[in-house]
Amino acid sequence: MSDSPGASYTRDDLTTPTRSKERAAWDEEAVHAILDAGYLCHLGFVRDGAPVVLPTLYARVGRVLYVHGSTGSRPLRGAGDEQGLPVCVTVTHLDGLVLAKSAFHHSVNYRSVVAHGTAHQVTDPEELRLALDAIVDQVVPGRSADCRPGNAKEIAATAVIRLELDRVSAKTRTGGVNDEEEDLALPYWAGVVPVAPAYGAPVASPHTAVGLPAYLGEAEC
Amino acid sequence: MSDSPGASYTRDDLTTPTRSKERAAWDEEAVHAILDAGYLCHLGFVRDGAPVVLPTLYARVGRVLYVHGSTGSRPLRGAGDEQGLPVCVTVTHLDGLVLAKSAFHHSVNYRSVVAHGTAHQVTDPEELRLALDAIVDQVVPGRSADCRPGNAKEIAATAVIRLELDRVSAKTRTGGVNDEEEDLALPYWAGVVPVAPAYGAPVASPHTAVGLPAYLGEAEC
Repeated sequence: MSDSPGASYTRDDLTTPTRSKERAAWDEEAVHAILDAGYLCHLGFVRDGAPVVLPTLYARVGRVLYVHGSTGSRPLRGAGDEQGLPVCVTVTHLDGLVLAKSAFHHSVNYRSVVAHGTAHQVTDPEELRLALDAIVDQVVPGRSADCRPGNAKEIAATAVIRLELDRVSAKTRTGGVNDEEEDLALPYWAGVVPVAPAYGAPVASPHTAVGLPAYLGEAEC
Repeated sequence: MSDSPGASYTRDDLTTPTRSKERAAWDEEAVHAILDAGYLCHLGFVRDGAPVVLPTLYARVGRVLYVHGSTGSRPLRGAGDEQGLPVCVTVTHLDGLVLAKSAFHHSVNYRSVVAHGTAHQVTDPEELRLALDAIVDQVVPGRSADCRPGNAKEIAATAVIRLELDRVSAKTRTGGVNDEEEDLALPYWAGVVPVAPAYGAPVASPHTAVGLPAYLGEAEC
């Protein structure tokens, strides 16, 4: 499942942002780095003509996104049809608050990926098992091998949709403030406040008799 | 702009999740607390029959959400029409990773709000100014009074959409693992890894000649 060096996703009208095009990228390396840095996505679909956006978990496996359906039995009904379900899956990492001297130039630093396409429900039990393991490992790398695997009934009770990555773009803002020249001397504080998810000390359940696994020690910041 | 105690948003088929209904809430207090704890949302709309989900910033003012259009001139074109634009605005806070003894019971703790409705572009200059100030203050409370206000040209160049909160629900998972009784003795670590956004030390721009404002000191964790 190695990525092809230099490969790119489809750059077209749909995957080109209307604003700040210079912040966009379509190469696999940029897109995959952003997807691999997270596990929470926002899944959009259309229901009765209106948009619905739900938070859920995902995993990237090669050029495929597996999206967990636990919050979304509604979309999964559509994804189970042969024609599939049009979706948009968006992953966003917030990296900083950009405070400029002018209100107008306030911004945030971020990395995001927007993936458009038609999703299909994963029905093959073996693919479903691999997809669920991948989702667990996307959240905590190594975890799927250190818990009781799902049995056939559990696997069947869990819904996952599959989206082939194709019409995908990344968008990123990095760096400092972009103030107007004539504002630079104004007596306001300007700069960037970094922000990132921080993981606290793991809290063991009362039924845990083993020590903290190595893969959780790494999660602490 | 005080909230009415005990008031609730519309509870109907659209705002009732199909899964884990016991985690849902419709009361203003719960919904507003989640909205007020964040500033990043995912805005969903329909374009050519397909869903689009974009990250952007928002502010809550009473029972109104103002959503920044910097990433979304596409949706704003629709929101500028008289009939408005059907949207779904979703705000999600991730609070913890829930690691169960079984793969099946892995989960995350979170708080989310999903708001459905028809958005309209804010065209009144005074409302637009208030909305933009609210968005700046949603990110960093107090900031809009400590920077150069937007001039008429800047205000006019910034797009904001207005969504009246009505068909809105909150969904929350808290607490520990929910393992099966027969799995409790399994020799795996189980528990919760807390997660929250952490703000780093602010990095001043080279043109900043004043000390760190009090409202930024509070942002450090």
